Amino acid sequence: MNGAESLLTTLTNNGIEVCFTNPGTSEMHFVAALDEVEGMRCVLCLFEGVLSGAADGYARMKGKPASTLLHLGPGLGNALANIHNARKGHVPMVNIVGDHATYHLEYDAPLTADIEGIARPVSHWVHTSSSSSEIARDAAEAVLQAGIGQISTLMLPADVSWGDNPNGAAAAVAVPGPATVPATRVDEAAVRLRSGAKTLILMGGREVTAAQGLLVSKITQVSGSQAMIEVLPGKVARGAGTAVIDRLAYLAELAIDSLKEVEQLILVGASDPVSFFAYPDVASAIAPPACDRFILAGPNDDIEAALSALVGALGATDIEPQSNPLSLPDLAEGELDAGKVGMAIAHYLPENTVLVDEAITSGMLVNMFTATARPHDQLNQTGGSIGWGLPAALGAAIACPDRKVVCIEGDGSAMYTIQALWTMAREQTDITVVIFNNRKYSILEMEFGRTGARGGIPGPSAASMLDISSPDMDFVAMAQGMGVAATRATTAEEFNEQFAQAMAQSGPRLIDAIVPTIF
Amino acid sequence: MNGAESLLTTLTNNGIEVCFTNPGTSEMHFVAALDEVEGMRCVLCLFEGVLSGAADGYARMKGKPASTLLHLGPGLGNALANIHNARKGHVPMVNIVGDHATYHLEYDAPLTADIEGIARPVSHWVHTSSSSSEIARDAAEAVLQAGIGQISTLMLPADVSWGDNPNGAAAAVAVPGPATVPATRVDEAAVRLRSGAKTLILMGGREVTAAQGLLVSKITQVSGSQAMIEVLPGKVARGAGTAVIDRLAYLAELAIDSLKEVEQLILVGASDPVSFFAYPDVASAIAPPACDRFILAGPNDDIEAALSALVGALGATDIEPQSNPLSLPDLAEGELDAGKVGMAIAHYLPENTVLVDEAITSGMLVNMFTATARPHDQLNQTGGSIGWGLPAALGAAIACPDRKVVCIEGDGSAMYTIQALWTMAREQTDITVVIFNNRKYSILEMEFGRTGARGGIPGPSAASMLDISSPDMDFVAMAQGMGVAATRATTAEEFNEQFAQAMAQSGPRLIDAIVPTIF
Repeated sequence: MNGAESLLTTLTNNGIEVCFTNPGTSEMHFVAALDEVEGMRCVLCLFEGVLSGAADGYARMKGKPASTLLHLGPGLGNALANIHNARKGHVPMVNIVGDHATYHLEYDAPLTADIEGIARPVSHWVHTSSSSSEIARDAAEAVLQAGIGQISTLMLPADVSWGDNPNGAAAAVAVPGPATVPATRVDEAAVRLRSGAKTLILMGGREVTAAQGLLVSKITQVSGSQAMIEVLPGKVARGAGTAVIDRLAYLAELAIDSLKEVEQLILVGASDPVSFFAYPDVASAIAPPACDRFILAGPNDDIEAALSALVGALGATDIEPQSNPLSLPDLAEGELDAGKVGMAIAHYLPENTVLVDEAITSGMLVNMFTATARPHDQLNQTGGSIGWGLPAALGAAIACPDRKVVCIEGDGSAMYTIQALWTMAREQTDITVVIFNNRKYSILEMEFGRTGARGGIPGPSAASMLDISSPDMDFVAMAQGMGVAATRATTAEEFNEQFAQAMAQSGPRLIDAIVPTIF
Repeated sequence: MNGAESLLTTLTNNGIEVCFTNPGTSEMHFVAALDEVEGMRCVLCLFEGVLSGAADGYARMKGKPASTLLHLGPGLGNALANIHNARKGHVPMVNIVGDHATYHLEYDAPLTADIEGIARPVSHWVHTSSSSSEIARDAAEAVLQAGIGQISTLMLPADVSWGDNPNGAAAAVAVPGPATVPATRVDEAAVRLRSGAKTLILMGGREVTAAQGLLVSKITQVSGSQAMIEVLPGKVARGAGTAVIDRLAYLAELAIDSLKEVEQLILVGASDPVSFFAYPDVASAIAPPACDRFILAGPNDDIEAALSALVGALGATDIEPQSNPLSLPDLAEGELDAGKVGMAIAHYLPENTVLVDEAITSGMLVNMFTATARPHDQLNQTGGSIGWGLPAALGAAIACPDRKVVCIEGDGSAMYTIQALWTMAREQTDITVVIFNNRKYSILEMEFGRTGARGGIPGPSAASMLDISSPDMDFVAMAQGMGVAATRATTAEEFNEQFAQAMAQSGPRLIDAIVPTIF
């Protein structure tokens, strides 16, 4: 077999079943190998930012990495923003970046670039394979290094890909699962929770499961402590039957105020909370500087086992957790707004939906209503680089073909990776996209005020940089142009009907919801 | 004034008149400063790959850099591919990248990244400004370093932006123009041209002007040498009245064959030619290894003056250059194909048009016909990272509001940065986009054969990675969704009429030309 076949076989031997691709000439032997090696599903994307976001969404839902296939430094550059998001969310990914043949690099052809240099800021592990006989070992190492929460980026020179490899493929490597939290740490948490200090348990990281939430609810009740979930956990179980736990506010001013009495912070998957951005006269740290910080479990630890042990240590096993009831809002009427969209989504959302949330300002109102909707998983933006939602929804749908995926998306955010719609159609994914079309970078209007720039009031030039209404974007036309059925809703009645229909049917679908900004 | 105002004033003092922007929270003080400082036109783009490509197109046409405004590491990442293209084309650019406040970095907020690390592989000069009182000096240095052909990337922390700067702005720095080629080098070229060796003068680099071509035509006639233009010069004057000079073939096999007799290579702006990619059993170098190489002028040298001196040294002043006649093809009829599109474009192209070419395979046929069209400038893809054409056309139109811009674009290439259409509409640019919609990555079908992968014949899985027909993309719908008037042409008659109308009118316009692949 050649290097490409050795690589592909090694990946599939290691449980990597999906490759999100946008190949070029230097990757043609990899592409050719798809017909020689069984077991790799390749999903073509029209832009690399789509495929890295899709690999993120896939891994969050599947609990194991997807691979990507990228075309030299610029292809990796295009993928970079969504690799950044995955990295910040502790999501694993195995990137394969085609490069020129090793002997061609010295000629400085147009596409020659410092690919390792581009890869390093967003990768935990970077390696350029130097021979066809080593690519199997390198690919196995890439999978191992991606582990459960890291980014591996492996460069595949064209001659390594096409060269003969007498050694064949590598067998499966044993990727360690979540690390066990030592009993001593659980015991210390128990002591701390019994100390009488005002304690906040902050949950977050890659995933907050329903089970974790219910265990924490027992813990807070028995210990008189409080629990919260960080602003944007990678994946969080929500809706009826999940524990009643508040989300920390996005606005640093509010978040700081909500934690001002906290004397002790116990981190469960979450990091010590910080303001998204710096603002003049607002602290960067959200928790009081003087409060004690204790890490019960990191994002790659076995959080559920640690919480379970803690429940035992606190004698809370028989306590009934506080959970959300099933409570569906009534449908609204009249002019459409983000709240009414949220009511309809919460009303109709099928059980087990994957709700991908990049609706930014409008999303706040949806979250309010979906707290008591049918149980579902919500995926959030973890790295702050917008243009993640549509790709992540694509990846989630590839990972979970039997689950409905609903993607709520801002108009501004959607436009970074709008090409995702085409792959949604191509793969006949069961995704309903709801665009909150408020014709603004609404969050930036708010942020302009918060930064205090020009007294918080944009002048005409600044205002024009926050406004995307000229021309108004027609997401129905764009979606149809990429093969996705789409409709527009300007009233609650229209939205209710269109969303109900989308939930009753399968396949890709977009609703262009014309709404005012929420401020 | 604050740091942002100092920065903006310094940029405008230095002749930077345009900023292509996609701001976020950390850039709000820069945005606010737009209403305090006169003279900077900000052009909002919905995706950073659009704005970096636009800055490239602008600088090629204006002969001086534009600035960009980017949002932290991921924003820079999104811009990276088109910065790469500019860098390879010796095009200057001044990137301003907002970062977190300096004191906020230690908190590792979601958007924190190694921005300098991301910037370095695509920048000649990278610097993070560390205080409001230094930003003016840093901005002046960024302009100086960008010079006539380099990429400067300056990081602007939020507190540097909002902090008070008692020192004010910096005055204009003297950016050196093209370097004079020493007379000794001109003399050596003259000696070499008289040596009797079979000589090829290869032109290229950032720009091949009409005057350069005509001078070279005199030189080849008097010396019996041959001239060619490299595969993809950044900007090249073409059409009636320009010199008859062949373009080097893209296909390495053909290019190597066409140069096999060459004993001496004289480089004028161009680099020693190399194959775009490596292929098994094809050489990377295009010119014979044994041939002599002599650099008369680099891309940043005063090429026209050097050629003029060389004409004098060779006594060729009075020789009549061989120039292209004005010869417009007749209009075609029947089913549309790329050649017929090329005939109509050549037929109707107004004098002084900027023709932006990212039509990849289909573009070859257009070039054939436009060689004798009305005189125009052609911009080409210099770094091999597709998704450059629409943004570059946008930038060219901002630079030259009085010139018609025609962008010929592949369907696959268009989809990397399709969001450019919205800014074309927003700014009411006079751009006609022609999409060659052949529903393939047609060049990859060809490249698959050239690499010899799987005997050159893609299997079904590989073929599906080269095919973008499922679903077919409707560029009329997408363009209309972004506010650009659009029509579809499936016959030559339809295309002829639509293109004629587009040339007769002003404003943004797209024609979705449904064509078969040219192979």
